Amino acid sequence: MDATEFRRRGKEMVDLIADYLENIEQRTVYPDVEPGYLRSLIPEEAPEEPDTYEDVVKDIERVIMPGVTHWHSPYFYAYFPTANSFPAMLADMLSGAIGCIGFSWGTASEATLVALLAARCRAVRMILASDPQRPETGITSKLVAYSSDQAHCSVERAGMIAGVRMKKIPTEQSDKYAVQGETLRRMIQEDKAAGLIPFYFCATLGTTPSCAFDHITELGPICNAEKIWMHIDAAYAGSSFICPEFRPLLNGIEFADSFNFNAHKWLLVNFDCSTMWVKKRSDLIGHWQIPLGRRFRSLKMWFVFRMYGLKGLQDYIRKHVELAKEFESLVRADQRFEISADVVLGLVCFRLKGSNEVNETLLKRINNGRKIHLVPCLLSGQFVLRFALCARTTESRHIREAWQLITQLAEEVMQELPH
Amino acid sequence: MDATEFRRRGKEMVDLIADYLENIEQRTVYPDVEPGYLRSLIPEEAPEEPDTYEDVVKDIERVIMPGVTHWHSPYFYAYFPTANSFPAMLADMLSGAIGCIGFSWGTASEATLVALLAARCRAVRMILASDPQRPETGITSKLVAYSSDQAHCSVERAGMIAGVRMKKIPTEQSDKYAVQGETLRRMIQEDKAAGLIPFYFCATLGTTPSCAFDHITELGPICNAEKIWMHIDAAYAGSSFICPEFRPLLNGIEFADSFNFNAHKWLLVNFDCSTMWVKKRSDLIGHWQIPLGRRFRSLKMWFVFRMYGLKGLQDYIRKHVELAKEFESLVRADQRFEISADVVLGLVCFRLKGSNEVNETLLKRINNGRKIHLVPCLLSGQFVLRFALCARTTESRHIREAWQLITQLAEEVMQELPH
Repeated sequence: MDATEFRRRGKEMVDLIADYLENIEQRTVYPDVEPGYLRSLIPEEAPEEPDTYEDVVKDIERVIMPGVTHWHSPYFYAYFPTANSFPAMLADMLSGAIGCIGFSWGTASEATLVALLAARCRAVRMILASDPQRPETGITSKLVAYSSDQAHCSVERAGMIAGVRMKKIPTEQSDKYAVQGETLRRMIQEDKAAGLIPFYFCATLGTTPSCAFDHITELGPICNAEKIWMHIDAAYAGSSFICPEFRPLLNGIEFADSFNFNAHKWLLVNFDCSTMWVKKRSDLIGHWQIPLGRRFRSLKMWFVFRMYGLKGLQDYIRKHVELAKEFESLVRADQRFEISADVVLGLVCFRLKGSNEVNETLLKRINNGRKIHLVPCLLSGQFVLRFALCARTTESRHIREAWQLITQLAEEVMQELPH
Repeated sequence: MDATEFRRRGKEMVDLIADYLENIEQRTVYPDVEPGYLRSLIPEEAPEEPDTYEDVVKDIERVIMPGVTHWHSPYFYAYFPTANSFPAMLADMLSGAIGCIGFSWGTASEATLVALLAARCRAVRMILASDPQRPETGITSKLVAYSSDQAHCSVERAGMIAGVRMKKIPTEQSDKYAVQGETLRRMIQEDKAAGLIPFYFCATLGTTPSCAFDHITELGPICNAEKIWMHIDAAYAGSSFICPEFRPLLNGIEFADSFNFNAHKWLLVNFDCSTMWVKKRSDLIGHWQIPLGRRFRSLKMWFVFRMYGLKGLQDYIRKHVELAKEFESLVRADQRFEISADVVLGLVCFRLKGSNEVNETLLKRINNGRKIHLVPCLLSGQFVLRFALCARTTESRHIREAWQLITQLAEEVMQELPH
C-alpha cells in the first residue's frame, strides 16, 4: 500500500469508523462468544503472499466484531468510562503517522522487568521449597542478576526496580562484544562462593550499541543447569528472524525461559507493539504487564501481516540489510574510515581512524547540518558512529547522499583537527 | 465535532498524513529548537470556548512540526527503526475508534508503582542519611506501605513488584468507605512499635467499587508529619475536577507528594492517556515510567482541549453526573431497590433489597440479555450492581430504557427466587 492507496483506504476507514460509531447502539454490547472463538476463523499462519485489502476489511465484521465488547455503546455501564472523541481520534491518526518516540526506543524494557519479576518469584519459591524455615525477607537481598555490559540500560533499571543486585558481564572486541559462556560460568561460581544466589540472566540478540549477539547456545545450558532464568532481549533483531537466512542467530532459543522482540521496531507495525514469549505460562501469571489496561495492539499487527504477507515482510528486512551492506562497502572503500563491528543486520558502526575527539566533532557537524541524523556509541572506549537503517522509504540514493555528506564533513573536520 | 464532521475532517487528515509522508524528506530531519520553544507558541491555559478545527490544523505546522524529530525520514539513521506502515495506521485508526480496553481499566497502575518506587528510594535515602552504618539490604524488608481496602488491585501489585509489605486499611459503610485519619494513625503507631518503617500511603479519590473519597485533609498532615509519601489515585474522579463544583473533593491535595488521573477515562481523550503530577521533580527522576518509549499522547489531549474548550469538557462531565442522578432517582423511587453508596459523580451503586444470591442472579440475567452491560462490586459483604455512565453518547432515553430492562428482569428473578 502506497500513499495514493492510503488516501483512498484511509477515507474509507474514516467512513467505516463513523458508520461504526453512529450505529453502535444497534450492536450487541457484550460479545456472545467463547474464548478461543477466533481460532477457527483465522488461518494458523500469516499469509505467504499479501491478502487483498478488501479481504481484510471484510474480516472486520466476520472475525473481529463478534468478539468486541463495545465500550462506547450507550448500553455499556460497566467498570468506568474509557474516553473516545473524534478530535482525539484525529490526533491519534496524526500521532501514528508522525510516529516519533517520546523518550527512547523500547517497551522491551517492560518485558525485561516482567521476566525479572517472574524469575525473582520463581527463585524465592524454589528456595523456600527446599528450606521452609528460611525467612523470605532475607532471600531477595542475596539474589543476583546478570547481563552483558552491552545490554540496554533498561536491564539495570529492572534490577533496581525489583530491588535485586545486578552485575554486568564484561565483553571484548575480540569476541565481537558477545557474552561468552566461560565468563558467565566464572561469575556464577564466584557469586555462589560469596553466598549470593544467581537467578536471572538477560541475554541480548542484537545489542543496541553494535548489534552483537550473545552466545546463547553456550549460555543457555549453563543457565538451565544453575536454574537461572534466561531472558532473551531481541528488541531490534527479533524481526529479522522471519527470514530463514537469519534464523541461525536464534540457535539456542530452546534454553530460554522468555523471549521478547519489538514488532514496532522493524516489522512495519506502528509504535507501540512489543511481543513476548514465555516457556512456562504459569511462571508469568500475575505479572503479564505493568499497566492493567492495554490498547488493541494486535489489530495493527494483523493488518500488517495480511497486507504485506510473509514475503513482503521478508523483502523489507532484506532490503534494509542490503542497504546496510551497501553503506558498509562505501565505508570500507574509504581508507580514512574503519568499520567498528560486524555488520549483521541493518546497523553499521563506523568511525574515522583517529581520536575520539575527531569523531565526536564529525558527529556534531553531521547532526548540526540537520540533513541526516545519527547517534553514537562507545565500543571498547572508542567513540563510534551508528548508521542504523530506519525509514521504510530509504533507498540506495539516500545512502549514497548520506555518505557523500559524511565524507565531505569528515574532510573539513580532518583539516581542522589533528587526528 | 459529530460523526458527519468527522467524516470530512478524517478525510482531510488522511490527506494531511499522506502529504506529510510523501514529502517527509523535504523536512529538516532533526529539530532546530531549544527545549521550551513551545511555551511562547501556545497559550498558558486550555481555551474556555472551543477553538475552530481550522486553527488547530494550522497550528500543526506552526507549533508542533518545528519540534518533531522525523523518525520516518529517509535521512534518519539514529537509534533503531520505529515501524510505520499504512496498514498499521489504518488498523490503529480502527483500534482507536473501537477503543476497547484489553484487560481492565487503567494505566493509573503504573503511576501508583512509579510513586511507590520513588517513595522507596526516598525512604532508603533518608534512613541511610540518619544512620550511615545501617546495611541497605535490611531496610526494604522493614518498609510498609498502606492503602484503603477499597483501593484498586494495582496498589497491592505495586507493593509486590517493589518487594515491600503492603497493608490494607479497613473502611466502613458508616464512613462512606473512606479511609479515616484515626485509623491510619493507629496502624502507623502499631507498625512503628513493631520495628517497621511506614513509607507510602496511596489515597484514592473516587474508588473503583463505589467512588468513595478518602479524607485527604485528615490523612495528608499525618503522612507529612511521618514523612510518608502520599500518592493520590484519582484515576476516574480526576477528570471531574475541571468543574469548580467538584473541586472541593480535591481539598487536601497540598499534602500530596504525587497525584494521578486518567484523561482516557472521562475526559474524552482516547485510551491511553494517564497524567501524573509530582511535588518534587527530583524524587521521580529515573523513575518517570516503566517503558523507555512512549507514544506522542499529548497530541490527542491538545486536540481535545482545543476542540471542546473547557466549557465543552465541563458540560460533558456535568451531563454524565446528571444522568447518574437521574438513574439514582429511578432506583430510589422503586421500593424493591436500595442505593448502596452516595452518588457523587457518574457511578450509581444499587441492589435489590434481598440476598446476594438474588442480586447475583439479577446481574447474570442482565448481562446474558446482552442489551446492557454492568459489572458488580462487593460493599461490606453485599453484592452490589455498579451502573457507571460510560459512553459519550448516552442520553436520558438510554438510562430509562436500561432501568426498564433492569426492573423487568428483577421482577422475573424475584418471582423465581426467595429474597
